[in-house]
Amino acid sequence: MTKKFNSVLIIGMGLIGSSITRAMIESNVANNLYGLDKDEKVIKKCLELNLLIQGDTNLSNFDLQFDLIIICTPVNTYEKIFIELNNFISHPTLVTDVGSTKMSTISDFNKINSNINISFIPSHPIAGLEKSGPEFGFSKLFENRYCIMTPFQKNDKDISEISNMWKSIGMTVEIMNAERHDRVLAMTSHIPQLIAYSVVGTATELESHMRDEVIKYSAAGFRDFTRLAGSDPIMWRDIYQKNKDAVLEMLGRFSEDLSTYQKAIRNGDLEFLENKFNKSKKIRKEIEDIGQAGSFDPTEKKI
Amino acid sequence: MTKKFNSVLIIGMGLIGSSITRAMIESNVANNLYGLDKDEKVIKKCLELNLLIQGDTNLSNFDLQFDLIIICTPVNTYEKIFIELNNFISHPTLVTDVGSTKMSTISDFNKINSNINISFIPSHPIAGLEKSGPEFGFSKLFENRYCIMTPFQKNDKDISEISNMWKSIGMTVEIMNAERHDRVLAMTSHIPQLIAYSVVGTATELESHMRDEVIKYSAAGFRDFTRLAGSDPIMWRDIYQKNKDAVLEMLGRFSEDLSTYQKAIRNGDLEFLENKFNKSKKIRKEIEDIGQAGSFDPTEKKI
Repeated sequence: MTKKFNSVLIIGMGLIGSSITRAMIESNVANNLYGLDKDEKVIKKCLELNLLIQGDTNLSNFDLQFDLIIICTPVNTYEKIFIELNNFISHPTLVTDVGSTKMSTISDFNKINSNINISFIPSHPIAGLEKSGPEFGFSKLFENRYCIMTPFQKNDKDISEISNMWKSIGMTVEIMNAERHDRVLAMTSHIPQLIAYSVVGTATELESHMRDEVIKYSAAGFRDFTRLAGSDPIMWRDIYQKNKDAVLEMLGRFSEDLSTYQKAIRNGDLEFLENKFNKSKKIRKEIEDIGQAGSFDPTEKKI
Repeated sequence: MTKKFNSVLIIGMGLIGSSITRAMIESNVANNLYGLDKDEKVIKKCLELNLLIQGDTNLSNFDLQFDLIIICTPVNTYEKIFIELNNFISHPTLVTDVGSTKMSTISDFNKINSNINISFIPSHPIAGLEKSGPEFGFSKLFENRYCIMTPFQKNDKDISEISNMWKSIGMTVEIMNAERHDRVLAMTSHIPQLIAYSVVGTATELESHMRDEVIKYSAAGFRDFTRLAGSDPIMWRDIYQKNKDAVLEMLGRFSEDLSTYQKAIRNGDLEFLENKFNKSKKIRKEIEDIGQAGSFDPTEKKI
């Protein structure tokens, strides 16, 4: 049975934080939702959108304790947040997060925390969009998506409460160790994103007439890379710092593979190319079959 | 004023050919539409879909001449098609195509054609989808998209008739020389596609448990690469053969740039990363502003 939380604090009210808030309201898993964000404009926006009963830019301004705290800020802010929580929390509190790197999350927590009232269960809901800010959030963002949890301490009751919370907003929960999570996500997320940034970067450094034409004719494939490249720069910068080893490993593999394509093109090895392209097409089919493909509309949305 | 063609032959009734047929029916630019495809099943499907008044697998089975012929097959088939057209055509005929490489198209034509009834004006409508086959075509595919024409002979009347035809199905036409087209498209299309194939390829070659997890958690960014990688393998194989020089040049630039990101991650140069990521985000904004971004729905389509 899903526990109904009395008071929940979301730290970081951007796209993900505000979407969680919306989803929690809709699925009725929390009585009172509070928001913390360092940006006053973000808090103002969330109050206008009726997402919170109280919002603030400073944790010490809250004169209550919370049952559940969800950290939704870039992973480089975690140390500072764990220090604040360590000082603030005086009653048993579940803490989870949404960060894309989990080894760093756990190591930051272990380095700082000495507060026995805090039970920290790291999570990573795999859902997102290239937009940032609370105005782009929506409650259905998590529906039919996976949430990977990487608990590092045995605490079945707390793990199950966090797990049920994610399930109640539509997610399928998987438990994984943090190291494996970081390698899998390097491949499914951090490398595609880095490559997207790099391709877009290459285009911006072309001669200026070429650059303009690349933008104009972007519907040919380039635009898909720019969609990824539209996401939050700070969030991504932090991920590359915090998941450096796995990212460099996967990047090495990718570069080796790309060289084999380059060589095949230079040598006119059509069989190699066709064979590789066919294999990739099959992977796409598998992703569609398990319902993780999303849907792309090549026409423009009429606003 | 747009000319209304009496008889139009589409060679290659896949996604693009069938979409052109649909768009021509809707915009009423042709009286009679004929289709040629080497695959009998494709012709049967098109007749079922009421896209054609006659379809065949062999050009010589048609006992009429056409006003307009549009070639919609992979670029490696052009030589063979130009030989057939050279023999078949006995009355003044406009010929255009939809191929993604234009220098090769022109050189194939010039090498083969000796038929003065043929006026060939190469085109490249920049529109597509990762699906192949006539069942996935739709008439709005070309709406608000660019079509690049690369005429290589002075013939204002014919150029304007082809240009008006593309405009009548919703496209904006630009005239460009073939060499420039091939370099621009290498960057906006051929390189993103190759990289998408390569990233997907890298993932398939991971240890098998990792591979399964990459597919499962693909919603994190990887799925966008697989979307591109879902397209027609033969079409793409041919493109890399026919636009080899421009592709290798742009690939070289990309690899150099990717190395600078790799180095920045290794050295923890957060300023470099943030700066690059911000620049890429701006490019995305420009593409959205000119209405070439398409729209992505991160939820699954209910079927």
